[in-house]
Amino acid sequence: MFKSYEKQSIGTQLDLTRVLGSLKFNERGLIPCIAQQTETGEVLMMAWMNREALDETLRTGRVCYWSRSRSKLWRKGESSGQVQLLKQLRIDCDGDTLLAMVDQTGPACHTGRRNCFYLEVNGESVEIAGDVLIDPAELYRK
Amino acid sequence: MFKSYEKQSIGTQLDLTRVLGSLKFNERGLIPCIAQQTETGEVLMMAWMNREALDETLRTGRVCYWSRSRSKLWRKGESSGQVQLLKQLRIDCDGDTLLAMVDQTGPACHTGRRNCFYLEVNGESVEIAGDVLIDPAELYRK
Repeated sequence: MFKSYEKQSIGTQLDLTRVLGSLKFNERGLIPCIAQQTETGEVLMMAWMNREALDETLRTGRVCYWSRSRSKLWRKGESSGQVQLLKQLRIDCDGDTLLAMVDQTGPACHTGRRNCFYLEVNGESVEIAGDVLIDPAELYRK
Repeated sequence: MFKSYEKQSIGTQLDLTRVLGSLKFNERGLIPCIAQQTETGEVLMMAWMNREALDETLRTGRVCYWSRSRSKLWRKGESSGQVQLLKQLRIDCDGDTLLAMVDQTGPACHTGRRNCFYLEVNGESVEIAGDVLIDPAELYRK
């Protein structure tokens, strides 16, 4: 299915239901979704969605993932208050990865950092980069 | 292991071998890696690495993935000439996703587009966005 889109010219409109129906969820029914902050382009995190989480995200405009550790829908920010508003959703060429352009309130990371990628390889070391904006004890108190 | 890094202060140096040894590869021995163009911040693609691909990437500075369809190391650009030079590698808070900041030559996408996320959800449609820079017939001729 996705193969047939490759030659389509820019601006062509495809039917949403049909495209979503041909997404390649993995053997657990999940698809990875990268969250990127609009305008700054900062990659905030990567998490997983099932079809239900994806549908809810598109319907509500608030990003909802599937929590693999808790085996339930994870409405980003439901405990921390740090929600992600969906600005645009993109699908990749193979239909097996999503890119959500979002507007993230505060820290996206459970450690209280703005983004999850705070470990930077630096020669033979890995450096802690990225400041804690809000103490997680504070974030998850509510 | 990754839990123990969360409280470390910014600038702390961790041992690379130790950190890489505790990365969470999935049941197939793979970890997702997002490729982002340095400076522009454009998310180019997402692909998978096994430990060998990761080691080669760090050793050579040229991004190498694991091709799930071909079940072999995939030195990005080996057939198309469109290589990815690694500028920085980041690891996420859970140790289960990588972010490679790269310098991408030409199109990252096998469709000849600059990035793989060329399908944009737009209301009840999905719009073809992103121009083909180089015809794939040309890209893969060599």
